[in-house]
Amino acid sequence: LKIFALNSNRPLAEKIAETVGVPLGKTSVDRFSDGEIRINIDESIRGDNIFIIQSTSAPVNDNLMELLIMVDALRRASAGTINVVIPYYGYARQDRKARSREPITAKLVANMLQTDGVDRVVALDLHAAQIQGFFDIPVDHLMGAPLLADHFIKQGFGSDDVVVSPDHGGVSRARALAEFLKAPIAIIDKRRPRANVAEIMNIIGDVKGKRCLMIDDMIDTAGTITLGAQALMDAGASEVYACCTHPVLSGPAIQRIQDSAIKQLVVTDTIQLPKEKQIDKIEQVSVGPLIGDAI
Amino acid sequence: LKIFALNSNRPLAEKIAETVGVPLGKTSVDRFSDGEIRINIDESIRGDNIFIIQSTSAPVNDNLMELLIMVDALRRASAGTINVVIPYYGYARQDRKARSREPITAKLVANMLQTDGVDRVVALDLHAAQIQGFFDIPVDHLMGAPLLADHFIKQGFGSDDVVVSPDHGGVSRARALAEFLKAPIAIIDKRRPRANVAEIMNIIGDVKGKRCLMIDDMIDTAGTITLGAQALMDAGASEVYACCTHPVLSGPAIQRIQDSAIKQLVVTDTIQLPKEKQIDKIEQVSVGPLIGDAI
Ligand SMILES: Nc1ncnc2c1ncn2[C@@H]1O[C@H](COP(=O)(O)O)[C@@H](O)[C@H]1O
Ligand SMILES: Nc1ncnc2c1ncn2[C@@H]1O[C@H](COP(=O)(O)O)[C@@H](O)[C@H]1O
Repeated sequence: LKIFALNSNRPLAEKIAETVGVPLGKTSVDRFSDGEIRINIDESIRGDNIFIIQSTSAPVNDNLMELLIMVDALRRASAGTINVVIPYYGYARQDRKARSREPITAKLVANMLQTDGVDRVVALDLHAAQIQGFFDIPVDHLMGAPLLADHFIKQGFGSDDVVVSPDHGGVSRARALAEFLKAPIAIIDKRRPRANVAEIMNIIGDVKGKRCLMIDDMIDTAGTITLGAQALMDAGASEVYACCTHPVLSGPAIQRIQDSAIKQLVVTDTIQLPKEKQIDKIEQVSVGPLIGDAI
Repeated sequence: LKIFALNSNRPLAEKIAETVGVPLGKTSVDRFSDGEIRINIDESIRGDNIFIIQSTSAPVNDNLMELLIMVDALRRASAGTINVVIPYYGYARQDRKARSREPITAKLVANMLQTDGVDRVVALDLHAAQIQGFFDIPVDHLMGAPLLADHFIKQGFGSDDVVVSPDHGGVSRARALAEFLKAPIAIIDKRRPRANVAEIMNIIGDVKGKRCLMIDDMIDTAGTITLGAQALMDAGASEVYACCTHPVLSGPAIQRIQDSAIKQLVVTDTIQLPKEKQIDKIEQVSVGPLIGDAI
């Protein structure tokens, strides 16, 4: 078993390698002068079972191509099996045609990985579990919820608190987290009475005087989660916490979280956070041991 | 027949559309907040024969993914045939394992395009003609040499001048250009007597007192071509001109050309040149009519 890290998330790869108890494989992954990716594997891997760790987070196209080129190089070097660990699977939201003539990029990515010769995929909290079915090879689908639950239980969260889903789509996820905490759930029910009219946020469930814990799979621009937090406070919540597996945090996200009613946001390290996104309100828990145990 | 332009080279796409005599298809190709590519085709294309114009020049991974996602969207929108015009085919130099455990990225790109459902490829001066064999679909392989020859013939070049190949690999290309000009050829013969010793440049052929015209398929960092130009001047050439199909021009290229013995460099527009690369010494001739006639 050999583990190789590409460039998207080396700290996580190191934690995974530590859990497994092997050093990271030797490889150089950099750029030619014109920006094309140059990969060289610096040790023999003939017949070995290889795990590549790469999140397809931003810059998504570069990270995806690094992964595809690495798999190509490994296959041509006669690797035994090629297993790709994709802690954050980019393009997962483009998983269906919501309008005419849209692509389904999440399937395109799956096709490319399969054509490339990948034997198995390990992923975490895919935006839609159906993405497993985009592959005809084994997909191990890990969940961040138990890890996040653990963190909040250690901080004293439990049956007196409420787990809140920020939209209809996330109720099952909220239910799963609530199970661990033995807490009730609530749902933020958004609807737009007419086009170009502000959304109305209605809270289903009892949050008055309660500590609320919102959960989502990913937080991107943080609009949903910060508006939800405000709606909970307006409905009389005592405090609002939030958590997610994938801290995409693009555009106005950091500023919005900073300015929001959210007391603390707990995220995992499926996506590496650059320095400027490591603010006091955000705490990271590692999925390294979780992934390490799964491979 | 419908022609769609992506973001790498819209000016060329417009010239192609003009030659063919159809307007460019309506599509929006931009980015979500997190940098993922968003494509929407804004007109019905059911049953149509589609041509997409996209060079996979820098940023190569973004341009390649735009192309792949566009093909996915077209296929899912029931396009009749999907033809991709790739004036500059990126990753073409990674076309073989020069060392152990290297990828063959040019083949990976071919596989991805085929899996994606492309019916036919139109390309120009592939770095190695063998890349045609990486596909099992028709590849139309166009040549820039006649166009470049035309340009120099109009400037009065002919049998009194010498066409020079900057290395052994490019002799056939020099021969082809010389045929048009009815000129003799010469070859710059580089060899390195020992490792870590400067290369010796030996010129095979008669250049003394002659006007020399160097030709290559692409100019990337411009090391080969500018050193070659100096070697020709040292051997008594009266003037040195240069030409290539693909102006990659990365890193120190522009400065090197500026400082070099090259009097004028003629390139095509397979790669769009940003303002800072449009210097007086570089002249662009368009492959728009050539491609337009081929599709
Ligand atoms: N990177 C992205 N950022 C924002 N929205 C996206 C992104 N990718 C896809 N979408 C859109 O998000 C919608 C799906 O999101 P969801 O309803 O949360 O599954 C679709 O309409 C997609 O067009
Ligand atoms: N983008 C690139 N820039 C510079 N060299 C490259 C690039 N891609 C591949 N190569 C290397 O260039 C060599 C092939 O170039 P050539 O001999 O001109 O066909 C191989 O050793 C490749 O590893």
